[in-house]
Amino acid sequence: MSKERLVVIGGDAAGMSAASQARRRRPELDIIVFERGPYTSFSACGIPYYVGRLVDSEEKLIMRTPEKFREQDGIDVRVLHEVEEIDTAGKKVRVRDLKSGKSAWVPYDQLLIATGALPVRPDLPGADAADIFGVSTLESGLKIRRRLDKGGVKKVVIVGGGYIGLEMAEALVMNDYDVSLISRPTQVMGTLDEDMGALVSQALRDAGVTLYLDEALTSFETKSGKVIGVVTDKRTLPADIVILGLGVQPNAVLAATAGIPLGKKGSIRVNERMETGIAGVWAAGDCAESFHLVSRKPFYIALGTVANRHGRVAGINLGGGYATFPGVVGTAVTKICHMEVARTGLQEKELRKLGIEWVSAVIKSRTKAGYYPGAGEITVKVLAERGSGRLLGGQIVGMEGSAKRIDTLATALHAGFTVEEMINLDLGYAPPFSPVWDPVVIAAREAAKKL
Amino acid sequence: MSKERLVVIGGDAAGMSAASQARRRRPELDIIVFERGPYTSFSACGIPYYVGRLVDSEEKLIMRTPEKFREQDGIDVRVLHEVEEIDTAGKKVRVRDLKSGKSAWVPYDQLLIATGALPVRPDLPGADAADIFGVSTLESGLKIRRRLDKGGVKKVVIVGGGYIGLEMAEALVMNDYDVSLISRPTQVMGTLDEDMGALVSQALRDAGVTLYLDEALTSFETKSGKVIGVVTDKRTLPADIVILGLGVQPNAVLAATAGIPLGKKGSIRVNERMETGIAGVWAAGDCAESFHLVSRKPFYIALGTVANRHGRVAGINLGGGYATFPGVVGTAVTKICHMEVARTGLQEKELRKLGIEWVSAVIKSRTKAGYYPGAGEITVKVLAERGSGRLLGGQIVGMEGSAKRIDTLATALHAGFTVEEMINLDLGYAPPFSPVWDPVVIAAREAAKKL
Repeated sequence: MSKERLVVIGGDAAGMSAASQARRRRPELDIIVFERGPYTSFSACGIPYYVGRLVDSEEKLIMRTPEKFREQDGIDVRVLHEVEEIDTAGKKVRVRDLKSGKSAWVPYDQLLIATGALPVRPDLPGADAADIFGVSTLESGLKIRRRLDKGGVKKVVIVGGGYIGLEMAEALVMNDYDVSLISRPTQVMGTLDEDMGALVSQALRDAGVTLYLDEALTSFETKSGKVIGVVTDKRTLPADIVILGLGVQPNAVLAATAGIPLGKKGSIRVNERMETGIAGVWAAGDCAESFHLVSRKPFYIALGTVANRHGRVAGINLGGGYATFPGVVGTAVTKICHMEVARTGLQEKELRKLGIEWVSAVIKSRTKAGYYPGAGEITVKVLAERGSGRLLGGQIVGMEGSAKRIDTLATALHAGFTVEEMINLDLGYAPPFSPVWDPVVIAAREAAKKL
Repeated sequence: MSKERLVVIGGDAAGMSAASQARRRRPELDIIVFERGPYTSFSACGIPYYVGRLVDSEEKLIMRTPEKFREQDGIDVRVLHEVEEIDTAGKKVRVRDLKSGKSAWVPYDQLLIATGALPVRPDLPGADAADIFGVSTLESGLKIRRRLDKGGVKKVVIVGGGYIGLEMAEALVMNDYDVSLISRPTQVMGTLDEDMGALVSQALRDAGVTLYLDEALTSFETKSGKVIGVVTDKRTLPADIVILGLGVQPNAVLAATAGIPLGKKGSIRVNERMETGIAGVWAAGDCAESFHLVSRKPFYIALGTVANRHGRVAGINLGGGYATFPGVVGTAVTKICHMEVARTGLQEKELRKLGIEWVSAVIKSRTKAGYYPGAGEITVKVLAERGSGRLLGGQIVGMEGSAKRIDTLATALHAGFTVEEMINLDLGYAPPFSPVWDPVVIAAREAAKKL
């Protein structure tokens, strides 16, 4: 009898975490990973810093090469291999070798789908022109950096005010490009409430980014197949290059075609152990659904931290262990020049949709004791359920030392704390690190007064 | 009928927090605060930075003056008034006006004792000599700074390797004094386990502080009433000035003399609402006992954060509201030059004493993504209960961005999380702030493997 085989589709965070965990627990397992790109385990989140020349070589963004996985872990990683079809009844996948162009069926006993997410591309005139870039794979980052290095780029137009859009804006403005950013909503950073998003817009303007808010992209102007401008419902902006940051959607086409049930936003539905419900088929990472621990509803989020956790849980289970992924609270942090931004939990528009009534408090404080040199401003917003006082979410915008304070709020969300309970949290205090009442606690205390 | 009167003994963090809270809830209450020093509400934690000239004037350390309390809050603060006796049966206190020297009895309806802590002074030959300084009140900080400004100081000997000792060592070595530090234990920072304390010792040496560990202070050499050397069981160190950082003890003499029951380390025993058990007598701050939420036992800790929380709870209750102080988890943070230090929960020697069996993991990681500029080393230790996996404590030593990560562990301790549960905490990740797995989570994950 031949060895049991695990096939993993996708060689990034989720897929490789799972493969490594399964290997550790079952040294005899035959593990094959098919990755259609040329790399494994790269840091997509590092791309803006590579483009912005804070990271000098692309190798630094690669956590582990296919060779290392093969030699050290005995994981058969096949890059430039694209899975084209899943046959869940026959327990096999059809794989095309992108070099030779040949396809073949490969049988599996267990299958993990870790196909990630795809950037949203606008279906608009001119969208296929040269010098319009998405930001997703390491290759896409390399392409942008190479284009910049080639020279001749002055005006950059970024479409989209989410994390990728903002981080690319920071990277490029720090390199003295003329950066404009177009956002359909009236504020950048749609995962913040409007009042907090306005602080981020201001930070971007202070950094030298020209913002066009509340503007809809309508088409791209091109010349000889190359983009030369971005057209909105209000104006045309000249552009040497365009960067799209319109968000991502789960890459679940393979799964959907194979009849595997989908969930939120078209992601692959999974249980707490990352099983799809189809015998022997698992999913993890940006293609898979999560559960929101505050709303208690299915939730889709594409983030490296979540993908790593999904992968770890799937891998432990595939390796014969037992692990569950309870869910997320929606934490994210980012930085725009000197301004740090963080959010967790539910925001006002989500609460409205869920029919949850809330109170909120927004406070301004300092990152260190007021008298300590370098104490910077920090604004914290806390949302709590009216009546019960249950913490629902929090948002932070401030100077150095602000963003990671979100972890206190995130951990409190996991714990189901009320804002009253948060007042007595025994957090670290010394003048170089905090006022005597930590800003997140001040915000919780103010919210508690409004219950 | 005259107005109901609240008398507060002690005008620092706990006393003034309580007075303010009570005032807010009961505008008609007669509130008198007796403070034997000349200041109210100063930041004792700021003294090392004032001595180290990072803070230029002592006014910056004063949060609020007696005049402000009087004018804005209608709180009758009498500085330079020392309470000499409490008569709990007669519900009155005997107060001496330190300017006139006259004493008088003042009746109260409710009494809050917020007399703080006193620095431990060694009962050794020469201990009363000039140029031996304690660090506690704002006046003590002023004295040190004035002595340094007067000139002629080259060699400073610090006795004690706790927070105050270390922060004074940092302050003075940054100002180019020749700083030696004597510690009775074999490591500085007794609130860390030995392995983590050793990292702090090394950081001190790297900063240029000469350490004499495992040495007992035996006496002071003096000349014409002034200190000129510090004598240990191993050597004599010449000293122009000596700074004592031997810890503090609750200042509970008044309470003890009045028959108010004492608890841990001679602190005033209180219930969750900060009542002493004697009718109408309350206590808060560094003179009062706390409860340790991890050991589930009474606990004494003298810290500004705790004093503020004690005071807030006492004040709400004195104002006719209802609030409780559930307890502490023992969090503390500090900084020695570029090295940040943090701890929370129980350490190994406490666990041993309590008969709790534990597993621990010590991991090294980075404060930011490895490829991001400025990613510094961070060492995290996590302690968990053998079997159950309940988080028991954590310690962190590392570069900028390390210390406040203790808040995640502290919040998890409040929540009673296991290290397994901590693995799936949805913490903030972006390359400028963290590796994809936050170092505290990596440590929890490693500890979970040993259960």
